[in-house]
Amino acid sequence: GRLHIDGIFFPEASRGIDYLENPGSGSEVQDRILFRRIRLGTQGNISPTGVYRLDMDFTSPNSPSMRDMYLGFNDLPIFQTVLIGNQKRPVGLDAWNSSTNAFFLERPLAVNALNPNIRRIGVQSYGYSQSESLNWQAGIFESSDVQAVGTYVDDHLQYCYVGRISGTPWYDETSGGRGYLHLGISDMYVQTDPSFNASSSPQNFARFRTRPELQTSSNWLDTGNLIGAEGYDVLGLEMVVNVGSLQVTGEFLDAWVDRQSDPDLFFHGGYVQVAYFLTGEYAPWDRQAGRVGRIQPLEDFFLVDRYNGGIAQGWGAWQVAARLSYLDLSDEEVHGGQQENLALALNWYWTSHSKVIMNLIHGSINDHYSSGGYTGGDFTALGIRFMMDY
Amino acid sequence: GRLHIDGIFFPEASRGIDYLENPGSGSEVQDRILFRRIRLGTQGNISPTGVYRLDMDFTSPNSPSMRDMYLGFNDLPIFQTVLIGNQKRPVGLDAWNSSTNAFFLERPLAVNALNPNIRRIGVQSYGYSQSESLNWQAGIFESSDVQAVGTYVDDHLQYCYVGRISGTPWYDETSGGRGYLHLGISDMYVQTDPSFNASSSPQNFARFRTRPELQTSSNWLDTGNLIGAEGYDVLGLEMVVNVGSLQVTGEFLDAWVDRQSDPDLFFHGGYVQVAYFLTGEYAPWDRQAGRVGRIQPLEDFFLVDRYNGGIAQGWGAWQVAARLSYLDLSDEEVHGGQQENLALALNWYWTSHSKVIMNLIHGSINDHYSSGGYTGGDFTALGIRFMMDY
Amino acid sequence: GRLHIDGIFFPEASRGIDYLENPGSGSEVQDRILFRRIRLGTQGNISPTGVYRLDMDFTSPNSPSMRDMYLGFNDLPIFQTVLIGNQKRPVGLDAWNSSTNAFFLERPLAVNALNPNIRRIGVQSYGYSQSESLNWQAGIFESSDVQAVGTYVDDHLQYCYVGRISGTPWYDETSGGRGYLHLGISDMYVQTDPSFNASSSPQNFARFRTRPELQTSSNWLDTGNLIGAEGYDVLGLEMVVNVGSLQVTGEFLDAWVDRQSDPDLFFHGGYVQVAYFLTGEYAPWDRQAGRVGRIQPLEDFFLVDRYNGGIAQGWGAWQVAARLSYLDLSDEEVHGGQQENLALALNWYWTSHSKVIMNLIHGSINDHYSSGGYTGGDFTALGIRFMMDY
Repeated sequence: GRLHIDGIFFPEASRGIDYLENPGSGSEVQDRILFRRIRLGTQGNISPTGVYRLDMDFTSPNSPSMRDMYLGFNDLPIFQTVLIGNQKRPVGLDAWNSSTNAFFLERPLAVNALNPNIRRIGVQSYGYSQSESLNWQAGIFESSDVQAVGTYVDDHLQYCYVGRISGTPWYDETSGGRGYLHLGISDMYVQTDPSFNASSSPQNFARFRTRPELQTSSNWLDTGNLIGAEGYDVLGLEMVVNVGSLQVTGEFLDAWVDRQSDPDLFFHGGYVQVAYFLTGEYAPWDRQAGRVGRIQPLEDFFLVDRYNGGIAQGWGAWQVAARLSYLDLSDEEVHGGQQENLALALNWYWTSHSKVIMNLIHGSINDHYSSGGYTGGDFTALGIRFMMDY
Repeated sequence: GRLHIDGIFFPEASRGIDYLENPGSGSEVQDRILFRRIRLGTQGNISPTGVYRLDMDFTSPNSPSMRDMYLGFNDLPIFQTVLIGNQKRPVGLDAWNSSTNAFFLERPLAVNALNPNIRRIGVQSYGYSQSESLNWQAGIFESSDVQAVGTYVDDHLQYCYVGRISGTPWYDETSGGRGYLHLGISDMYVQTDPSFNASSSPQNFARFRTRPELQTSSNWLDTGNLIGAEGYDVLGLEMVVNVGSLQVTGEFLDAWVDRQSDPDLFFHGGYVQVAYFLTGEYAPWDRQAGRVGRIQPLEDFFLVDRYNGGIAQGWGAWQVAARLSYLDLSDEEVHGGQQENLALALNWYWTSHSKVIMNLIHGSINDHYSSGGYTGGDFTALGIRFMMDY
Repeated sequence: GRLHIDGIFFPEASRGIDYLENPGSGSEVQDRILFRRIRLGTQGNISPTGVYRLDMDFTSPNSPSMRDMYLGFNDLPIFQTVLIGNQKRPVGLDAWNSSTNAFFLERPLAVNALNPNIRRIGVQSYGYSQSESLNWQAGIFESSDVQAVGTYVDDHLQYCYVGRISGTPWYDETSGGRGYLHLGISDMYVQTDPSFNASSSPQNFARFRTRPELQTSSNWLDTGNLIGAEGYDVLGLEMVVNVGSLQVTGEFLDAWVDRQSDPDLFFHGGYVQVAYFLTGEYAPWDRQAGRVGRIQPLEDFFLVDRYNGGIAQGWGAWQVAARLSYLDLSDEEVHGGQQENLALALNWYWTSHSKVIMNLIHGSINDHYSSGGYTGGDFTALGIRFMMDY
């Protein structure tokens, strides 16, 4: 289970931003208070090696959708873990990280755009080498997102092939993993529906879009449905260097879109992120899955009156982080937009399962389809999240 | 979790009541069988002093909404408990009582109308004095009810300030709390949207309405949107006297509505309630929260065949109660209606977590906006509820 | 909780089948991947003899509905277990069996058509004789299915009376129940709404329909609303013979429909089913409820690398089954259709709580209302289900 509560405020936004948020009216982008994630579910074992997970999302309470919804086995020969059902496609690092362990409110632009909504129905193998220095994920999925409706109906199953391999060529065992180097590469090929047929449902067009690293009402970058696209390939490169309380992360993702008659399209994005714990903690690495682990504060947050006067206290963990992120969804005649974001974070970890994220984001968009006469704009936003999981 | 199953029957209703229930057609008010509450969720600790609660309501199964949805800390200096998220606004006593511990099917008219839907997103402090003779709640909330959609989008956060203080100047410790006097006062100021703008969503007009202490299809008393209202203030006064198995409760609530150009409005309501356990139990008082506690029958209900013949039995607890309730939502040119209800209850407690409530209600409405030529009417209703919680 | 994931494929379907699936367009019946059941809920005790169950269905994640939703008591004199709330109506055997213990993807045609959606709000008694050789269920229900909306509003409560009695005249105690003969009879009378009134909701017409033992988009057999029907009676006869790993099951169900002015209608269906465990297991019998119990593989499925080389393995349980099923929903001027299905199953039980069902179905439909000029057709389908419960 998971509970994320957000406040988002836009002290500054140019007129072009208003038209990206409200394309028709161009009315001002609005502040908001929202539940970002409400998750209830269960997980467990069906046998010593069998597993399941049922996880429902009630973020929009009157319109639930599913998240992880699978069953499978661990410890199989060769394939190790095999899961069947709705599950994450491991393209890139930040998509693969849990939102529970995030340093920023939202995933980077490129991750949201090029691996949209992340989960699909499929079969996937998860494994790692005996030394834990290498791990992989490889799966076949149905390309359509059916997390809201639960059913995909079409003779043409449109496949999505995903593979990722990552490892830690350097991992400092003696310090318990306070130092490491992580490298990873991933690739996804997605079959899409080249024809425009508005009556078929669910549709599976190639389309890339993303909100501006904040939970706005609209996707500010959006290619629209890429008519005539038969499929696309997404490549992800990832690197993390961690030295004690300091972590530097970099990712690059790109997408090649095959179109029947028009020239192929190329979109790309990435980010560089630096994070530092002011209070001495470090971000552990999950070497079996190849992703960031759960941060454990050296001291939990608490304030209680002492019996004999005064206040006993613990201040939790404090982390600062900065992320420079970009995405380019404009190529040929497609003007999905280019965006650059600088995000600063101040994070207060109350416990290993609860924290507060504060973000200050300045972003700039250009080369977007014209909306109200504007092709982009600038904005500054503040976001705060109170979050816990159990 | 909570499960409440209701049957509601209208042996008598005048024609005016039919037009309140079905304003267009005036077709007869109908009997009904319904799930009044289906709640599933979880709660727990995020640390020795940290807490959370995620509670979803599935009463209308295909359109869930959230109820308590918060995280926070206990035992803080000065503020004691602080919770962030969707939570109750403690205006008056019956709104603050759990529906689990109710003696009647529905909350009184005035409570339902003047503290509508009770919960909002906000931050609230909960505390009590060391002797437990005083307790308080104080919070700031967003005024809009977003329990169905989970998101409030608007630059103009419309605040709602709530405070309540209550205490037990008399509390008979020696009998374990079988005797006590509870007094309380609460106040809520709600900012509302004075302009009529049908396109903004969620809207936050001043509006007071309520069903007739039964789960009907329509709100029989309803002021409609009070155009031009900039805010309103609700004051609540509450008193409970408990002597052994007898409990007498009284509440008064009123609302002042500030309007930009038109004269201010004044609405008010209240109730007096007498309850008595025929089987010797008493209603315990939660002195830390200032509300009624969970009733523990002296003997649970059970009927089982004895091994050596005959039937072993326990009859549970039996309680009778009467409530005289009124609400006046008519002032100036606003004719939301006036209602008086007399409700009789016979309650059969199976266990501390399950019971049957039986209500007989006679009500009378007048001074309502004309509907089908009627401005009110009389009705008699029977209700039965089977309920449990865990 | 329960998770069922299906793949369904139609290698062959005649044109008439396309028009049954897509009556307007006659476009081809499509393959599909779907979540067949996603259930989350809870159950427990409210006292040593009190019970409850809250079970929500999220199969269509953005449109949940309820399933078992009741409270009640066990061990009562005479009535034994009495439950109040939404629960199964025990008409026939396969409706009464849990989907968890099914040998085929879907219940037989006749069961789906004549006891539609199975659960209703009501009060029911469940009991069995001290020797467990006899058991019964008897209940009164509201006839309308309100599992999606949770509320039935109508002065005319339309009752449904259900009774079932079954027993095991032969039950081989010495082998722990590897041999038994089960016989049962059940009857349901349902009051329905004779008039056509499209504005009343929820409506409660007599109507029988079913999908073709596969989770298609449309009901391929469908009588439509039977205008003028005041009620109908469904009779079920059931028999099971089990000898070790072999189980033979037969059921017959029919429905008489009383119509005000038109001649009464008679619909009927049934099936014969043979199942055999290749790996020596048997299907245990739940003698207290009169239905099939949970299959326990002699050896769970697992494959793990041995520490000293090689693979340790368990192959689970393997079962083959065949079912011949028919339904006739055509009588007088009503042409709901006649269908015959032959279904073959190969079932792989991983554990007692997880398995894979593989079905091959050949079906034939005729005497249906004309759709696109066709009154029926033939189809061959393949289905696979991965399933678990906890």
